[in-house]
Amino acid sequence: MTTLRNVQPLRGVWNILATPFQPDGEIDERSLNRLLLGVIAAGVDGITVLGVAGEAQKLNQAERRRVLELTAAATSGRLPICCGVSQDGTRVAVEMAQEAAAAGAIAVMVAPPTFLQPGPALTAHLRNVGEEAGLTVVLQDYPPVNGVSLTPTQLAQLADAVPAIQTIKLEGLPTPQRVAETLALTGSSVTVLGGLSGNFLLDELRRGAAGTMNGFAFAEVLVGIWQAWRAGDVDTAASTYFRYLPLLATEAQPGISIAVRKHLLQLRGLIDHSLVRKPGPELHEGVQKDLADTVRRLGALDAFPITDLQEARR
Amino acid sequence: MTTLRNVQPLRGVWNILATPFQPDGEIDERSLNRLLLGVIAAGVDGITVLGVAGEAQKLNQAERRRVLELTAAATSGRLPICCGVSQDGTRVAVEMAQEAAAAGAIAVMVAPPTFLQPGPALTAHLRNVGEEAGLTVVLQDYPPVNGVSLTPTQLAQLADAVPAIQTIKLEGLPTPQRVAETLALTGSSVTVLGGLSGNFLLDELRRGAAGTMNGFAFAEVLVGIWQAWRAGDVDTAASTYFRYLPLLATEAQPGISIAVRKHLLQLRGLIDHSLVRKPGPELHEGVQKDLADTVRRLGALDAFPITDLQEARR
Amino acid sequence: MTTLRNVQPLRGVWNILATPFQPDGEIDERSLNRLLLGVIAAGVDGITVLGVAGEAQKLNQAERRRVLELTAAATSGRLPICCGVSQDGTRVAVEMAQEAAAAGAIAVMVAPPTFLQPGPALTAHLRNVGEEAGLTVVLQDYPPVNGVSLTPTQLAQLADAVPAIQTIKLEGLPTPQRVAETLALTGSSVTVLGGLSGNFLLDELRRGAAGTMNGFAFAEVLVGIWQAWRAGDVDTAASTYFRYLPLLATEAQPGISIAVRKHLLQLRGLIDHSLVRKPGPELHEGVQKDLADTVRRLGALDAFPITDLQEARR
Amino acid sequence: MTTLRNVQPLRGVWNILATPFQPDGEIDERSLNRLLLGVIAAGVDGITVLGVAGEAQKLNQAERRRVLELTAAATSGRLPICCGVSQDGTRVAVEMAQEAAAAGAIAVMVAPPTFLQPGPALTAHLRNVGEEAGLTVVLQDYPPVNGVSLTPTQLAQLADAVPAIQTIKLEGLPTPQRVAETLALTGSSVTVLGGLSGNFLLDELRRGAAGTMNGFAFAEVLVGIWQAWRAGDVDTAASTYFRYLPLLATEAQPGISIAVRKHLLQLRGLIDHSLVRKPGPELHEGVQKDLADTVRRLGALDAFPITDLQEARR
Repeated sequence: MTTLRNVQPLRGVWNILATPFQPDGEIDERSLNRLLLGVIAAGVDGITVLGVAGEAQKLNQAERRRVLELTAAATSGRLPICCGVSQDGTRVAVEMAQEAAAAGAIAVMVAPPTFLQPGPALTAHLRNVGEEAGLTVVLQDYPPVNGVSLTPTQLAQLADAVPAIQTIKLEGLPTPQRVAETLALTGSSVTVLGGLSGNFLLDELRRGAAGTMNGFAFAEVLVGIWQAWRAGDVDTAASTYFRYLPLLATEAQPGISIAVRKHLLQLRGLIDHSLVRKPGPELHEGVQKDLADTVRRLGALDAFPITDLQEARR
Repeated sequence: MTTLRNVQPLRGVWNILATPFQPDGEIDERSLNRLLLGVIAAGVDGITVLGVAGEAQKLNQAERRRVLELTAAATSGRLPICCGVSQDGTRVAVEMAQEAAAAGAIAVMVAPPTFLQPGPALTAHLRNVGEEAGLTVVLQDYPPVNGVSLTPTQLAQLADAVPAIQTIKLEGLPTPQRVAETLALTGSSVTVLGGLSGNFLLDELRRGAAGTMNGFAFAEVLVGIWQAWRAGDVDTAASTYFRYLPLLATEAQPGISIAVRKHLLQLRGLIDHSLVRKPGPELHEGVQKDLADTVRRLGALDAFPITDLQEARR
Repeated sequence: MTTLRNVQPLRGVWNILATPFQPDGEIDERSLNRLLLGVIAAGVDGITVLGVAGEAQKLNQAERRRVLELTAAATSGRLPICCGVSQDGTRVAVEMAQEAAAAGAIAVMVAPPTFLQPGPALTAHLRNVGEEAGLTVVLQDYPPVNGVSLTPTQLAQLADAVPAIQTIKLEGLPTPQRVAETLALTGSSVTVLGGLSGNFLLDELRRGAAGTMNGFAFAEVLVGIWQAWRAGDVDTAASTYFRYLPLLATEAQPGISIAVRKHLLQLRGLIDHSLVRKPGPELHEGVQKDLADTVRRLGALDAFPITDLQEARR
Repeated sequence: MTTLRNVQPLRGVWNILATPFQPDGEIDERSLNRLLLGVIAAGVDGITVLGVAGEAQKLNQAERRRVLELTAAATSGRLPICCGVSQDGTRVAVEMAQEAAAAGAIAVMVAPPTFLQPGPALTAHLRNVGEEAGLTVVLQDYPPVNGVSLTPTQLAQLADAVPAIQTIKLEGLPTPQRVAETLALTGSSVTVLGGLSGNFLLDELRRGAAGTMNGFAFAEVLVGIWQAWRAGDVDTAASTYFRYLPLLATEAQPGISIAVRKHLLQLRGLIDHSLVRKPGPELHEGVQKDLADTVRRLGALDAFPITDLQEARR
């Protein structure tokens, strides 16, 4: 066990990085780098790699290392990195967390192993991962991926039992209500971040969330809401949220969330291909058309042009 | 078995009627009647009673009959009625369906019994309910209430095997994509309605939905979207949907949906008390405040005043 | 709220009464009475009516009352009665619990409402049911019926928060391990009973269970194991359990448990028809044959003849 | 895509190999080799590595390769090998399947990716894995690990759509009934194997199962039942099954199955340590004691001495 070298709670807008692929299924490193530039330019506070939204569970070990490496290189210390290490075994999760620490990550994100209900085994898992890597643990509460629903009481108990947990990424619905209930139990030592493509960001902030961690394709929108909110400008936060909610809601749909996101990232020119690794649903042709129409109606591409990245594309 | 006397698919906006309660927990018949007038005035195409959103599973037999009776009296034939008869036993469901038919309902809504996966037993259940009552069956696909996830293939197979099923209320996410996939398998003999408080109504219509059946507190919004859509005025449909999406999304949150809805209905003056029968989460005080603020920012109360119902309130 | 008039923890073998039906689906009262005589003659310590195994959720209100009434009449105070009142609404559950109290039941069995995870709402539900009826509450932990998995910690917290809960019917696997973990947290004020057709009865007793509550078709076997165990005769308890385990295991299978049980009860002559109310799987013809063969190999019918009930059959 | 070089359905008793660990958590290769000798000596028809019961999901890539390599070396062609390649991503599963083929495996075992319900995406996943590796696919139906419940209809549809699927490992309860229902739909081109530690082996065979694939600690028992059954000696099959059912049932308990199994393997002397990788429940001390007592009462250690392996232990 090493000393915890960084156990500060996370705040602000953390982008969960998508992993772009080439048509043949290989990681598209050129797109990954462009996407990183785009995300950094959007003004996010941190980058999370190898989350569910990064399709980490569909990457092999070498590919996971490569994504982490490329991200560390692209940010080169300008932005903090959080690395997903959700695994069904403690030992493998610890290995991955140690690799993340070695690559410069300051936090790891951990969801409960599949179907592991709260109890001593889950507590020990989270504790071991944090302690062995010496990093802050972001506890991810996202029932669809592991079948584990954590109540606010259980979230608070875990945060209390595992000092490394300083941030909870709360994605069990209804999130604003549960943010309030959880913070009432954890006190001020822990931050709660929303997720779900920012679908409930305004109300999560109103109930005390310290930001959001998600991969919404227009990170600028999340940054705009967060910065307005933090500056006390609720009107701007609300109007920005209201304006882009059609896209937030569309992207938040379970089952096709990553496909929608990559389609939007491709429309923006941030990645070359919208391919999602198999197995995954094909985005219905009509749904793609509707998505493009919604983007058009909202004027989203014009609002957030990516011309500044032209250079990076070459 | 009686002859199917009405097996027409449902279309348009069907309101799932909330059941208002007094502070002591008794059904608030005065509010129920006022709410019915409001819903009818909103221009809906039909009314669904005793759905999950009507808290049917928290009513006793006498109360369920009373709600049906009051609704039939208030509509007096002006609007068609669909009656929820989701039960874990076929015999009891048939009894309820027959009572619904006797009270004048033209359709029954049936979700699969708790945890009953598709197979001969589920098919027989749905067939028996429809045939014994001689009514159209609306097959409800809403995994959170019964733990049954139906794939588009299974929905189409059930509709094919049970002629009484002419409408599918599709609420398994992602709904627009699944509406498209389901309609591709069912052909034109079956309609698909959305639900989920109208959270994805625009995209459901774009993918072929024939309307929606849900209890959103501002039924006027749903009617506005639907009528514009049907008239080919996509711009109005889209702008109306975009404008009120913050409320649609807030009300659609699983776990607190009915509480949010009743809070909104009370804000509008359509019911006297927002009480939800136990057990159920209390709407967090802060969440109530945020909800009121969102209503104010959208100008929803002014957009849909209920002055026309003053008379009815006396 | 009435005073708790009976808050003693339950012990011993409690039979969950099957509800026999005629071929037309009506309750078969003659068989019900014969079954009651058989169960009483088997030497059980109490009878539980209107459990899942009694198909309570497939009975209407009048039928539920009738079963309770017939059971009270047949036992006429010789045996204590526990009545299932698992309902999704508190108010309806309270009504049923009060009816049970009026009919002479000394306990009610309550499972968490469908998908209601532990929290203040569940605690209040259990408290209200117990207090309003003034009866002991048997907290049923049986995930397959409601989608709620309670950890030992949560079971102990509920028992602590709700004084009326003095018995936990623990049916979440693995039961012997969880009996031990739960009792380590609850102390001596609460008893834990097994269930699951007695499939793990020996090991549940070894880990501290105070008996079992289930509807296994040969209640005599459970009584034999329990009485030997209580008398300190572990060898007899173990050998009896080992001998009949093929039947215990067969009957414990989720999905067809009640069908297997009724088939066995019919083989024994305790009920006239093995009909299970719809929807429910038909017991495969081959499975029926195998079941009869297992009964024959174990000599179960000869070991527990029901000749003493001949009189009652007339 | 390579040509399917081996698409024969599996039959008989296939042992799912446990992965033994040293106290420090490293793979215990000496125990693994001894266990392999024991399993081969027991007379099994094949060996399955890297299943859930082999804790594959808690091994890293190098460890998985090592287990496969050691097993191939120990069997050196005397027994066929099936290799688990259940993964959430198709590409990674294909890579693993190809490695398995290269190492000499003749089959791969694949469970649906976590929460991936049947549909085109699941079909494509299974097809790709089988075709790219050119191996028979054993479709694993085991809901507890991935949240996917496949109905007999869905199992048959998958086997029909994916020619590489020639064997179904059916572990969704109730297994004997579902074996019958599935075989009625698949015809004779597909075999069905049971699992679940052999807890229902007799009745699965009676309903048409072609054997079983599981890791029960006394593989000799399974072999004894299977060989008697195949020889038409139902009496011996039944009496052997009945005699050891207390151990089969105990080991089959979800949540602690692997811990019970390793405890038994250690009692037998087949592995040095019963350690299960974290996270996992500790086997309660009392449960360990009860287990030892049951082994003693059944005389299992004497019935199946492992003296023949003394040499191998050195």
